[in-house]
This record gives sequence, C-alpha cells and structure tokens, in this order.
Amino acid sequence: MTATIINGREIAKELRNTIKGEIQNLTKKYHKDILVVTVVIGEDPSSEMYLKLRSSACEEVGIKSKILRYPRDISEPTILRQIHDLNNDSMVHGIFIQYPVPPHLSPTTLMKTVAPHKDVEGFHPENLGRTMIGDEKLIPCTPLSVLTILKHAQIELQGKDVVIVNHSNVVGKPLVALLLNRNATVCVTHVFTGDLKGHTRKADILITGAGIQNLITKDHIKEKAVVIDIGIIPTKDGVRGDVDFNSVKEKASIITPVPGGVGPVTIANALSNMVITYKMCMEKDV
Amino acid sequence: MTATIINGREIAKELRNTIKGEIQNLTKKYHKDILVVTVVIGEDPSSEMYLKLRSSACEEVGIKSKILRYPRDISEPTILRQIHDLNNDSMVHGIFIQYPVPPHLSPTTLMKTVAPHKDVEGFHPENLGRTMIGDEKLIPCTPLSVLTILKHAQIELQGKDVVIVNHSNVVGKPLVALLLNRNATVCVTHVFTGDLKGHTRKADILITGAGIQNLITKDHIKEKAVVIDIGIIPTKDGVRGDVDFNSVKEKASIITPVPGGVGPVTIANALSNMVITYKMCMEKDV
Repeated sequence: MTATIINGREIAKELRNTIKGEIQNLTKKYHKDILVVTVVIGEDPSSEMYLKLRSSACEEVGIKSKILRYPRDISEPTILRQIHDLNNDSMVHGIFIQYPVPPHLSPTTLMKTVAPHKDVEGFHPENLGRTMIGDEKLIPCTPLSVLTILKHAQIELQGKDVVIVNHSNVVGKPLVALLLNRNATVCVTHVFTGDLKGHTRKADILITGAGIQNLITKDHIKEKAVVIDIGIIPTKDGVRGDVDFNSVKEKASIITPVPGGVGPVTIANALSNMVITYKMCMEKDV
Repeated sequence: MTATIINGREIAKELRNTIKGEIQNLTKKYHKDILVVTVVIGEDPSSEMYLKLRSSACEEVGIKSKILRYPRDISEPTILRQIHDLNNDSMVHGIFIQYPVPPHLSPTTLMKTVAPHKDVEGFHPENLGRTMIGDEKLIPCTPLSVLTILKHAQIELQGKDVVIVNHSNVVGKPLVALLLNRNATVCVTHVFTGDLKGHTRKADILITGAGIQNLITKDHIKEKAVVIDIGIIPTKDGVRGDVDFNSVKEKASIITPVPGGVGPVTIANALSNMVITYKMCMEKDV
C-alpha cells in the first residue's frame, strides 16, 4: 500500500486564504499597512529563491515587503545599528534577517538584536525560550510547519515516538520543545549519532532535515511511519529532500514530498508570524 | 563489579571553595556585598528545607541572603509589583522565586517578570532561549548540575546516547538543549511514554527525574550505563530518588546516590549563578 502524500501547496493555499481575510480585517481596524523588511547582507544565490517566494506570498495576502541590501563586508556595529533603526521604526512591523550571513557576523548576535515583537522568524532567545516552555507565540517557521502538517493530517502527538534528524538552533532544538509540549516522546539524532537507523526505525513519526539526499531509505523506517521531510537540497534536477521518496512511500503511512511538502507551508507560516508581529506592534503603539 | 558512586557533597564542596575565592575578589573589586533575595509566597513545608540549605550555603561563601515572605492569597498584580521593585533595587543582585507557588499565580508569568540579569534560576524565557541555542549564561541549576557531574566524571558527551526521564520546563527541556549543544543523541521520555524500558535500556547515560521511587531498576539500564538520579522524593526514611540504587549500582559504571548526589551540586550551582548575576548587575551599574 502506498502512503498518503501530503500536498503542502494545498495546505499553504488554505493558510494564505485565512491569513488574507485576517489581514483585511486588521488593516481596516488599525488603518495601517503591514510592512515587513528583509535584511540581506552580501549575495547568496541560494537565498534569492526564498526572497522571491516570500515577496510574492506577501503580495498575495496584502503584506507590503521590502528588501534592504547591505554590502558583504559591512561591519557588525553598522549592521546592528541598522537593525536597531528598524526596531524603532513604527512603519516596520516585522524583520527578517536572511541567513546565511557572511562569516565575520555572528548569527546569534543578529538574532538577539531584532526586537522580540518584530521577530518574524522566532529566533530571538526570548521567543525561543517561550517556545521551550509552551508559552508559544512566535515559533520558527519550519518547526511550526511540521506542527501544521501533523495537525492537518490529524496525527495525535501525545505518547508517540518521534525521531528528529537535525539538532540545529532554528529547526531541531525548537522542534523538540514543541513536540515535548505536546507530550510526544522525542529522540533527537544528528551527524554525531552512531546508529542512526537504530533510532529512526523506532519512530512512529520521523522528521528529517539533515540536508543529505537519500539519507533516509526504506530500511530506516518502521512500517506505517509518518515521514516528514524538511531537507532542502538543490540538485540539477531541482530541489530534493533527505528521503528516498519512491522507496519510502511504499512503506510509510503518510509522507511529505520535496518539493511541494514542508516548503510551501513554511512560507505560509512566515506570513502567519507577520500577522502576529503586526498585532504585537499595534498593541504596543496603542 | 560495583559502579563508581559519585560524591555530590565532595563536588559541591570544591565548587563552594572556588566560588568563595571568586566572591572575595569580586566584592573587593566592586566594594559591594552580594545580596540575593528569595520570594516565598504562602507556606510549603517541602520548600523550607531548600530555603535553609540555600541560606547556609550563601553564608558559607559570603553571599548575603534574605527571604521575603508574602501571604498565600496575594494578588498577581501585587506580587508582580514586588518583583519589579526588586528588579529595580540596585542593592539586590539576584532573585529566587520559591516554587511551587499557590495555584492562582502563573509560574510562567512570575518567571517572565524577574529581570533576566537577576534571574539566578535561569528560568526567564530569554535565559532559557540562550541555553537552547548554546549562548549559555544563566542555566537552570539542576540541568547545570548534571553537566557539572558528567564533567567531573570525565564523561564525553559527543555521540553518546542519552535518555532523559523528565520533560518539565525547568529540568528536561533545558537539559535536552544542553546535551544537544554538546552533540549527544538525546531521547526525552516521560509519563506519556509507552515503553519506558525500551528507551532507557539503550542509554549510555540515563538521567532520571520522574519523582517516582524505584522507577528505574536493573532491568531498565544497559550494562555499564552512567546513571544520574535527579529525583527528590521525601519518604519516612529520608529523601530518595527514582533509582533502585542497590540493584542498579551492580550493573551501572557510574551512579549518583540520593541523597548526596545531584542535590548538593545543585545548591552549589545556585551560588555560581548568583556570582554571574552579581557580575551582570555590576556591569550594568558601571
């Protein structure tokens, strides 16, 4: 039996429709457009795709978006000052920093500098800490999208064995918190894990974001597992994920494809977060 | 072969000696005593032991400590105002809230109200978020003590299979972050986990804090596992932990007893955190 294939584009479209309606109500209430700014430092070809996708998603739902480009060799004090200015600009309701940034800049310092109430990505320590303790407000978009997809597929989390392949600050670590907040048993694996298969085979739900094509084969999963692929690997045949899709879909019960799975939902969830930061800005203004 | 039994009292004593020296230098440098305040709301007999232990630990290393007691039925706005006053009081360098608090008060709200730079417990979302992303500054004392003990026993974490039995905001969740920051493979189990033994038996390092006496038996652990018991269960024979100590110590390689294991180290680490908040206060003052 073949797995149910999640249609991320469809889920994203529904989300955008809901968000669009909410934005119409909000901008009518506050008489102010939503403006979101993306800070791009230097040039990174892999970023351009996201920038385009995000801009057109913003446009579709009625959010104004602006890209601010800074030179690759900008000094840390200068870029931090720019971010402070955006924090203080009452016309700006959300700030993205486009990662990766040049190596002389510390992502952690940039994440700490964006004001928590304009932090669309949910990367500020205060927002990550709130995510950790279940006081969830601005959740990083990729982990949030995993929740969106699981909810859409009506997967109960409490008591389930979930295995994550990724322990980054912006994906794996917030995700483990979100899953623990919902009482799943969670195991986090990564590049330092000796016996990956020994762990993944136990998973009722496997969430993988290693960035290694075909890392997860049929052999890695349990019969009828739910498999969520958050890997994004550019190849000459287009974007691919971590999962050997064709073999795994024969064994899994539910699976997300790449492209068309988690990706579009992540972009839609970025829009939801923009609505949240807009509301936070407006409540602060009042 | 019997396991090596960790002597938490000995580790705590060494820690206190180091801290005492550091405090002498610091108070000489800044010409100001360290004052730490504990906010106690209502009466909870189980809290009194901690209050006493902490006060005498403070005295030993040269930290002034004060207990502020408030009535059980104090309103939330009133207690939050009290905490704000302590945040603004330049004579106070560290604030503890004694948990549990009466049910009409939200622990999360209290944790968010203590200023991050006076947050000796490391429970403010900003401090928890920093712990999550490896920008570690004020780490909650119990998880920190697990690290202290593992370091003392010279246990390498990278690539190890660690299983935690606890998924609370103040123990399990910060602990998983700390272990992931050190590249361990981490599995978090709890009361909703179906097959506890199936998980714990895989652990190179088992850290348990369920608060259930004899939950962890010889059957639950792998041969030569490291077993850290953070359970604190008051019984008529004194304080006990989660681990069936006498049987487990015959199979483990390293084990912490209760009492005399993690507990004393936790109190010593609270003192280390007080030194950190003092330094943060002084640097803000300058």
